[in-house]
Amino acid sequence: MSFAERNMALLLRRMKLDAVLFWSLENIRFLCGFTGSDGALIYGGEERVFLSDSRYEEQAKIEVRTAAFQKYRRKVEGVAQRLRAMGVKRLGFEAPALSWESHQKLKGLLPRVALVPLSGPIADLRARKEPEEIEKIRRAIQIASDSFLDILPRVKPGVSEKTLGDSLEIRMRRRGGEASSFPAIVASGPRGALPHGKPSEKKLDKKDIVVIDFGERYQGYHSDETKTLVLGRPDPSQKKIYDLVRRAQESAIRAVRPGASVRRIDAAARDVISRAGYGKFFGHGTGHGIGLAVHEPPTISPRGSGVVKEGMVFSIEPGIYLPGWGGVRLEDLVLVTGRGCEVLSYLSKELKDNII
Amino acid sequence: MSFAERNMALLLRRMKLDAVLFWSLENIRFLCGFTGSDGALIYGGEERVFLSDSRYEEQAKIEVRTAAFQKYRRKVEGVAQRLRAMGVKRLGFEAPALSWESHQKLKGLLPRVALVPLSGPIADLRARKEPEEIEKIRRAIQIASDSFLDILPRVKPGVSEKTLGDSLEIRMRRRGGEASSFPAIVASGPRGALPHGKPSEKKLDKKDIVVIDFGERYQGYHSDETKTLVLGRPDPSQKKIYDLVRRAQESAIRAVRPGASVRRIDAAARDVISRAGYGKFFGHGTGHGIGLAVHEPPTISPRGSGVVKEGMVFSIEPGIYLPGWGGVRLEDLVLVTGRGCEVLSYLSKELKDNII
Repeated sequence: MSFAERNMALLLRRMKLDAVLFWSLENIRFLCGFTGSDGALIYGGEERVFLSDSRYEEQAKIEVRTAAFQKYRRKVEGVAQRLRAMGVKRLGFEAPALSWESHQKLKGLLPRVALVPLSGPIADLRARKEPEEIEKIRRAIQIASDSFLDILPRVKPGVSEKTLGDSLEIRMRRRGGEASSFPAIVASGPRGALPHGKPSEKKLDKKDIVVIDFGERYQGYHSDETKTLVLGRPDPSQKKIYDLVRRAQESAIRAVRPGASVRRIDAAARDVISRAGYGKFFGHGTGHGIGLAVHEPPTISPRGSGVVKEGMVFSIEPGIYLPGWGGVRLEDLVLVTGRGCEVLSYLSKELKDNII
Repeated sequence: MSFAERNMALLLRRMKLDAVLFWSLENIRFLCGFTGSDGALIYGGEERVFLSDSRYEEQAKIEVRTAAFQKYRRKVEGVAQRLRAMGVKRLGFEAPALSWESHQKLKGLLPRVALVPLSGPIADLRARKEPEEIEKIRRAIQIASDSFLDILPRVKPGVSEKTLGDSLEIRMRRRGGEASSFPAIVASGPRGALPHGKPSEKKLDKKDIVVIDFGERYQGYHSDETKTLVLGRPDPSQKKIYDLVRRAQESAIRAVRPGASVRRIDAAARDVISRAGYGKFFGHGTGHGIGLAVHEPPTISPRGSGVVKEGMVFSIEPGIYLPGWGGVRLEDLVLVTGRGCEVLSYLSKELKDNII
């Protein structure tokens, strides 16, 4: 029995539910294997039914081995009909994934069924990874890293951000990736102050500092990594900010172990930056879980809650963004192990290895 | 004043709303120009505020010209705070886009505000395209079509579906596209019976019929097109099914004019296929609107409602899928004009032009 099956059995029992209705594609894929882009999963104690429309009938029959298949013409109506046939009286649903409108329709169609919102208990369902999942993440990291090294010789003054971003995504695909985790971010010079800067037609300049944030999907699982490169000999401000972010990242990585609170891990990075007077230029959280979704629990931030556990995989990615100057972000994925963590990303984040 | 502004002014007045809260990224981009991946828009009669987190602060200041910017740390809390400051008493919200959970939080934070679900009135907001939008769709179609022609010489026995799909997506990117509209579908031989078949390692065979469904995004706007190719001289069944789908497609295209109901357009295609006895092998709708989203209103299906109007852009894509045999789908985008429609896609869908 997998983590997931055990957790679901516990959840059904603890919340006294006859079934849980899954709406998010990641959870559906995780629980029944369906990789298409629309459907719903009814997960009961005994009976499991995956529902989709005619476009996916053949695919579902191939992919979904642990649930029956039911075709619908209208999604909510089809789901309600099946729930009625199953005699479900208390139904959990994914509160963050089900829209207000679909919930309303479902309530109208099933007036005597208790609809129980699940958010916490469902949010962590995929957080601890099984060995096969970790292998897929490792492979995604490898595809992305190899591709980064392929394009590294092209990083020089005169090349545009967009050309670099496109080249990187194309290499990742050619090396066996399924799709980019997200549009690659390439932000050079002052544009680096945009933490999520889309690659523009701006050409790299001498002395630019360049933030490159990229990832690829492999068998549904994502990688995510950020390198910051300096073109030419770093000036004192570049060296100072880079070192600060690197120290913050190392401090957070050292704080990762089973039982460590997400706030404490965040603080380990944030305190280094704040003590140096740059706290207000690090506006985002320190990290996020990753797997079938690019962003999933745990959330490593000052507003997160809970502790990390063995088997969780998440990013550690502090950054400093100075308007008019640019930015530095360094991002690695870590896996929580029995006593600490393993850094899964393997491209160097040392300044000396990132000078072009 | 654009279509959109006029429609929003009408909506606010008709529903007696102080403001509408937008949650979907497509509507946010449409109304205020923000192209990032997280945020919310409060659209009031006088005051418009775009809200996002620190990652997008710099980008929002550049992109968003018609709304003020407000930064939040927690999304729903930040939105509620601003709504309170604006004195909003009656707030419309996107019922299909807002999750049950976010709605619940908002209700808890704003107990005295009436939350009014909008679905119909909001659904059509982007349906009629302005000339600049149509130009972007044309450009997306051109990028995708040119790329298809680039890879056409590689379509022959021995090449894998995945190689073809990847090559097509890479060409589209190189030709100036931003991202694929969706992972390209390449389904050959019997796999063509999967309407949404992901490209597999299966190699094309002599005599295969191959469904290729592809599209690219340009400045936020998508293309979508399906070609069906026959490898070698079509056998009688291939010729028969292809011709049937082509006649169905032509029949639907002839039915498109301002005021035509979506059901009538769907029936124009469906009747051709049903009369030939293949109705149950055409399981999906005839088409969908397209623009900032790949699927948006109008829905051209037997269960759709309403009529089409000048300026709408949607697909006409009947198909027949025979388990064990394969499939044929032909998809063009059409623009509703003053008296009929213009077929925006320009790659030939005639059988004689699709024999390899």
